[in-house]
Amino acid sequence: MGKFVFNFKEGSAAMKNLLGGKGANLAEMMRIGLPVPPGFTVTTEACSRYFKEGEKIPEDIVGEIFAHLSELEETMGKKLGSRENPLLVSVRSGAPVSMPGMMDTILNLGLNDESVEGLYESTGNRRFAFDCYRRFIQMFSNVVLGVEHDKFERIIESVKRKRKAEYDTELDDRDWEEVIQHYKDLILKETRSEFPQDPRKQLMMAVEAVFRSWNNQRAIIYRRINKIPDDLGTAVNVQSMVFGNMGNDSGTGVAFTRNPSTGEKHFYGEFLLNAQGEDVVAGIRTPKNIEELKELMPEVYEQLINVSNLLERHYKDMQDIEFTVEKGKLYLLQTRNGKRTAQAAVKIAVDMAKEGLITKEEALMRVSPEQVASLLHSRIDPSAKVEIIAKGLPASPGAAWGQVVFSPDEAENLGHQGIKVILVRTETTPDDIHGIVAAQGVLTSRGGMTSHAAVVARGMGKPCVCGCDSISIDYANEEFKAGGITVKKGEVISIDGSTGNVILGKVKMIDPVLSEEFKELLGWADEIRKLSVRTNADTPKDAEVARNFGAEGIGLCRTEHMFMDQKRLPYVQEMIMAETADEREKALFVIQNFQEEDFEGIFRAMEGLPVTIRLLDPPLHEFLPKEEELVEEINELKQKGEKELLRKKQEVLKRVRSLKEFNPMLGLRGCRLGIVYPEIYDMQIRAIFNAACRLTKKGIKVLPEVEIPLVSNVNELKKLTERVHEIAKKIMEEEGIKVDYKVGTMLELPRACLIADELARYAEFFSFGTNDLTQTTYGLSRDDAEAKFLPYYISNKILNEDPFIVLDRDGVGTLMKIAVEKGRKVNREILIGICGEHGGEPNSIEFCHEIGLDYVSCSPFRVPVARLAAAHAVLKERIK
Amino acid sequence: MGKFVFNFKEGSAAMKNLLGGKGANLAEMMRIGLPVPPGFTVTTEACSRYFKEGEKIPEDIVGEIFAHLSELEETMGKKLGSRENPLLVSVRSGAPVSMPGMMDTILNLGLNDESVEGLYESTGNRRFAFDCYRRFIQMFSNVVLGVEHDKFERIIESVKRKRKAEYDTELDDRDWEEVIQHYKDLILKETRSEFPQDPRKQLMMAVEAVFRSWNNQRAIIYRRINKIPDDLGTAVNVQSMVFGNMGNDSGTGVAFTRNPSTGEKHFYGEFLLNAQGEDVVAGIRTPKNIEELKELMPEVYEQLINVSNLLERHYKDMQDIEFTVEKGKLYLLQTRNGKRTAQAAVKIAVDMAKEGLITKEEALMRVSPEQVASLLHSRIDPSAKVEIIAKGLPASPGAAWGQVVFSPDEAENLGHQGIKVILVRTETTPDDIHGIVAAQGVLTSRGGMTSHAAVVARGMGKPCVCGCDSISIDYANEEFKAGGITVKKGEVISIDGSTGNVILGKVKMIDPVLSEEFKELLGWADEIRKLSVRTNADTPKDAEVARNFGAEGIGLCRTEHMFMDQKRLPYVQEMIMAETADEREKALFVIQNFQEEDFEGIFRAMEGLPVTIRLLDPPLHEFLPKEEELVEEINELKQKGEKELLRKKQEVLKRVRSLKEFNPMLGLRGCRLGIVYPEIYDMQIRAIFNAACRLTKKGIKVLPEVEIPLVSNVNELKKLTERVHEIAKKIMEEEGIKVDYKVGTMLELPRACLIADELARYAEFFSFGTNDLTQTTYGLSRDDAEAKFLPYYISNKILNEDPFIVLDRDGVGTLMKIAVEKGRKVNREILIGICGEHGGEPNSIEFCHEIGLDYVSCSPFRVPVARLAAAHAVLKERIK
Repeated sequence: MGKFVFNFKEGSAAMKNLLGGKGANLAEMMRIGLPVPPGFTVTTEACSRYFKEGEKIPEDIVGEIFAHLSELEETMGKKLGSRENPLLVSVRSGAPVSMPGMMDTILNLGLNDESVEGLYESTGNRRFAFDCYRRFIQMFSNVVLGVEHDKFERIIESVKRKRKAEYDTELDDRDWEEVIQHYKDLILKETRSEFPQDPRKQLMMAVEAVFRSWNNQRAIIYRRINKIPDDLGTAVNVQSMVFGNMGNDSGTGVAFTRNPSTGEKHFYGEFLLNAQGEDVVAGIRTPKNIEELKELMPEVYEQLINVSNLLERHYKDMQDIEFTVEKGKLYLLQTRNGKRTAQAAVKIAVDMAKEGLITKEEALMRVSPEQVASLLHSRIDPSAKVEIIAKGLPASPGAAWGQVVFSPDEAENLGHQGIKVILVRTETTPDDIHGIVAAQGVLTSRGGMTSHAAVVARGMGKPCVCGCDSISIDYANEEFKAGGITVKKGEVISIDGSTGNVILGKVKMIDPVLSEEFKELLGWADEIRKLSVRTNADTPKDAEVARNFGAEGIGLCRTEHMFMDQKRLPYVQEMIMAETADEREKALFVIQNFQEEDFEGIFRAMEGLPVTIRLLDPPLHEFLPKEEELVEEINELKQKGEKELLRKKQEVLKRVRSLKEFNPMLGLRGCRLGIVYPEIYDMQIRAIFNAACRLTKKGIKVLPEVEIPLVSNVNELKKLTERVHEIAKKIMEEEGIKVDYKVGTMLELPRACLIADELARYAEFFSFGTNDLTQTTYGLSRDDAEAKFLPYYISNKILNEDPFIVLDRDGVGTLMKIAVEKGRKVNREILIGICGEHGGEPNSIEFCHEIGLDYVSCSPFRVPVARLAAAHAVLKERIK
Repeated sequence: MGKFVFNFKEGSAAMKNLLGGKGANLAEMMRIGLPVPPGFTVTTEACSRYFKEGEKIPEDIVGEIFAHLSELEETMGKKLGSRENPLLVSVRSGAPVSMPGMMDTILNLGLNDESVEGLYESTGNRRFAFDCYRRFIQMFSNVVLGVEHDKFERIIESVKRKRKAEYDTELDDRDWEEVIQHYKDLILKETRSEFPQDPRKQLMMAVEAVFRSWNNQRAIIYRRINKIPDDLGTAVNVQSMVFGNMGNDSGTGVAFTRNPSTGEKHFYGEFLLNAQGEDVVAGIRTPKNIEELKELMPEVYEQLINVSNLLERHYKDMQDIEFTVEKGKLYLLQTRNGKRTAQAAVKIAVDMAKEGLITKEEALMRVSPEQVASLLHSRIDPSAKVEIIAKGLPASPGAAWGQVVFSPDEAENLGHQGIKVILVRTETTPDDIHGIVAAQGVLTSRGGMTSHAAVVARGMGKPCVCGCDSISIDYANEEFKAGGITVKKGEVISIDGSTGNVILGKVKMIDPVLSEEFKELLGWADEIRKLSVRTNADTPKDAEVARNFGAEGIGLCRTEHMFMDQKRLPYVQEMIMAETADEREKALFVIQNFQEEDFEGIFRAMEGLPVTIRLLDPPLHEFLPKEEELVEEINELKQKGEKELLRKKQEVLKRVRSLKEFNPMLGLRGCRLGIVYPEIYDMQIRAIFNAACRLTKKGIKVLPEVEIPLVSNVNELKKLTERVHEIAKKIMEEEGIKVDYKVGTMLELPRACLIADELARYAEFFSFGTNDLTQTTYGLSRDDAEAKFLPYYISNKILNEDPFIVLDRDGVGTLMKIAVEKGRKVNREILIGICGEHGGEPNSIEFCHEIGLDYVSCSPFRVPVARLAAAHAVLKERIK
């Protein structure tokens, strides 16, 4: 039989999996001599046994817990439930992976009708004792017995009304005794049994409740969002209580060793005098800046600074510290690596590397690619005229706009429909997570920089403005007032989480600027990564943006967007309507001129870097008007009697109908067009090489890569590559110019992957088009699935993730591996990349590195993300 | 350097690849002492060198040819081009694989202005000599010089008009001289050079023309249809001429050692007196039955009977013999394994095996699965009242109906649109092949049982009525007359190739009856094959038909057809329109009763055999009216003011629109429906087990296999199999009955194949749905592709075959192999089959055998085909 309970003195930071993060760090702090109230930890293995053995704490573990309790009583010289000298403990969850605010905590356990008197006697503070007791009953009943929080608050409110009190602090010991009586009545009514008076029973019930809370709804959602395995389990920490609410020489607070918002190296935090920890985190009272403590408790402040330095050096990372001051004495209740904004993460990592605290590699691993992504969020254009209606705390940087919603459910609902929303709440709780996930940003009227909303939003990289007390929210009428202005549900506001500004309407955003630290970090990433990073760009502007972000070429330039341009569409339509190859050629001639301009612009922007140009891909009907619109137009024209135009439209309708397909995704598109209508591809190939030759003549280095899309059999590729070489040769000979070019293909159909060896005989490069490859491998039309059943699949855990977002390694990935192996077997030099949206998604990039791709290509704003993710892939591989 | 020319004396039947079929068999006949006119063969390797060396006959080969020519001249005591005693030769192609009528032949080569006189002198028949000369000029000019056949015919016609002659035989030597002069003028005009007089030059030009003809259009088409590789090449046979046109003691004919139409064991054939071989084959004159030769030339007839017996014993197969009688002396010009109808193939194979001539295994290999398929063609219902308008020769058995067309191009055109046509021609030539391919059947007014149309149609297993001289065809007016009736293009006729009847209109067809020999042959196949053969059947009737054909279970029972039934559709629509699960349940309750009846019927028909029932697969919108129709109806209802119905229809339209998908093939269907609307599958599962329990109670053995369609991830399968087991358990417990059932899945998406190991944890069987698997592997919507670009792809050789007909081994097949390996690794007992249309296609069946499937499932009429193909697969494997 194992050991399932550990005294804090027995543990260390290395035992995180067993003791949970909180327990391990409490042990570690004790180990290095910091003032930690004594206690013990019930391990995660105990939690696993609890679930395995039918949600019952096994007898042997119960025994161990009580043995450690006795030890604790001895250490403290107090006894649980004793009238003389009662020991009070906190019972807190602590999973191996930090899940802030997600698990349940019970303070002041051990109080009952007797020991409350003991507490009074030992502290001499009757009001304090009964306040503790009612807090305990309230927390215990809520968490363990499942009685609604609001019902307790209503009791306090009614007593306050009776006393005509505004604040809790105005209530005295007898008021609290009255509250407690009402509480007990409530509990009897709700649970049909008395509030448990036996402190040992209280303890075991609390431990069980913590275990159970591992599987409560909000914990499950948090784990799903943060991809934490469900089978880790939580530890339970039982710790002797210290009290921040014993008067104005007491208090409690949260501090960071560096600024979690900006990353600047200075001690940062908040505290509340005469309060218990819950008051700070819950955001009910707005706390004070830690600087103020310097004057109020100079010694404690200095001690805190020292602790801060010690912990940061010890953990080699920015720490988030919970402390309590009991009658002037400092106790540390928790330390952990602090959550931080993306901006702070970058600055702290780079600073610490420069300070020699960590290596460059460690610095890189400290910043997640998704954090980088959030740094690339837009900001509000400083030159834009904006109407600021309120100002709160700048709790999570970045700007966002959206329709105002007041309910998390509604936020989720609208979010799923693709509607941008800002979630507006007085304060948020863990139950609101799904709404925060769905919203563009969060605005709260209460709570500080460490309130729930702030912490969660920062973790998600979403803009958040907190504690904006100048707005008053009216849930019932679904509106909020800010100054003289009333903003109703559905109206659009913007928030700026970097300044705290709340702005009426939608404001103009501008592109982000990268900080020096950020550039430095990405430079380190470039030294390490093996994957090259390219961008998907169809215009010179996009190409430039991407190049500035470090793109090393274009991995996908789609030519169809060029066809859609309003100036060109008439010619494109003429080309499609052409009845002979001759007529088609004529229209194509005009389009060719446009295309040459396009390609020149892109080649210029990417001078010296490779540019993969995909020949026309979508079905031709995408360039024609919609059938229903045409029918309507024709009906109107008939009534007007406009015969000439009518005839023309009727012809278009005929063509639209003849081009109609049951499953356009699987129809006449991609290289199938190139085979059936060779004139179109010929035109594009001519345009590419005309443009390339022209620029080469001017001394501009051009590296075109012509890409044949939607290949499913080798003859398609053979025929079309031959055509490219033929035209290229002719034009280069005519121009007397040699252009360094490649011809290759997109692998976007399962069959292409399966015959990659055959394809590699003709292709000089492969580019995985994982969007279409995912659609065909799954037999899933993205447009249909995401609208109809993919959300259902994900929320019902049929699928863990949307395979269009995170690359499906088992299916699509297996095909990719097959293709890489087969392709390289025939052509060792073949260049292989990815250009689907997965090319900018960190998990997918890691996979691309693992299977040995040469490059990933992603949208311009994902380029820095990909650079970092590619470096992470190398570093993770080293660890394995 | 190799040897590129072989004297007939040097060869044998074993050298078919080098000498071609014709050359090898001529050599063989000479070897066994039969009367073959001497000659030599230029090999297929010479042909390959001809193409490799720029379409020029290499000098060394020219030398070898002339050396053999000298040898031949010596043997015959004649000299090519000599005025005294001229040697005449035939030059004929002969590929390793029989390609009847596809290659070009030149007779009488060696004639020129001088040697024609020599021929006259040596035969004493001036008319004969000049007839030979003009035939030679005509054939040579057409085949070698490319002058149109018709132009020569027109010259003959004009001379005949001048002479007021009706038949060629009425022309005398001087008439032919005049014809020859006109021919020469024509050639000078058309080719700008004189007709070549040098016989050696004639010979080399002819050899080259034969080589070239390997790549003429009709040869290429024939090879494509018959899947003959393009690089085999043809040999050229140069043989001293014998003449069947030297008077009424001469003649030429074609004979079969057994009846090629019925397979009966008797000598069978046709001949023409005073004619050259071309006259028989071309179908210009209608030849006489070989029986008549018994009286006309009794010795020759007896000799032929002996030769027939000898050859059949020697080759151990039915032979197709060409012979010529020159002045009473018999010469054999060719023997080969005879083409035969499917019926004959079966009878001959079984008879020969019983005669001890061949083994059972050989007998099986003598019948191709496609021949079996043709035996399963429908026949005309004997009880049907039909209007017979004409009667011709029963040239290829089976019955067909279709619109009359007179042009092969039009036949092809309409055929591609899915319109059934009967091709009606006076006679067919190899240039008409594409039209025969596209038609349901062929009707000709001229030509016998061995005419081109008859041979080709039999080869393709298509019904054909030949030599129907009671109809007169008017191409110009696109009609034919039969008795007093005029049938215009587009009108429907039926033909019965087993009786020769031509019938007005469409007649009722009935199912075929299997001959005893056929059943015996299939019995032999059953002893050998390893694959089990099941059927795809949705109704008790289909199930019975298939069981009579030997089906060993149902591999795919589609439930959607049951939903489409007019009696049920209203409830199905009600179910789809339901707004709550409750309403849906109510409609489903009614459908469940129907479904139970369905399943009971099918279980009964398949008593004791497994029945795979696929749960609902198609998207729900398939059961609702079409959008356009609804819009129209609604517009009408609006005008009529029928409010109640209008409202209803509008609701349906709303639902239709909400269910609309961009790519329904990849949308909300298959098990996705089962996940999102569990009530539907629940109903079907209940129906299956209610029916199964009811029959089991009655002592009827039922083996249901519940199949989950369109699975792409393991959780879909896990959830739904659990549901099946749950409901099955409940019903079986309630009924107190134990039903032996399985749950499994269709593998029809690439991803399902790639994760077959995961799926095998829950599935007890896999069934490859290769229709959808082909669509997704290729990214090809069958409906769109076959209408839009697949024909283009095949005719342009981008694809060799339609992958929806012949299983794509490289792509789809690779996925299947992966799935079989992964599936069996996890679950060795898993049952694996195929139920796509490929399950009835012989090449695909062979592949299924190779990769170790347990069964194939195909449509009822393909069951015998599959039984034979499965045996072939085993026998082919033994040879390897």
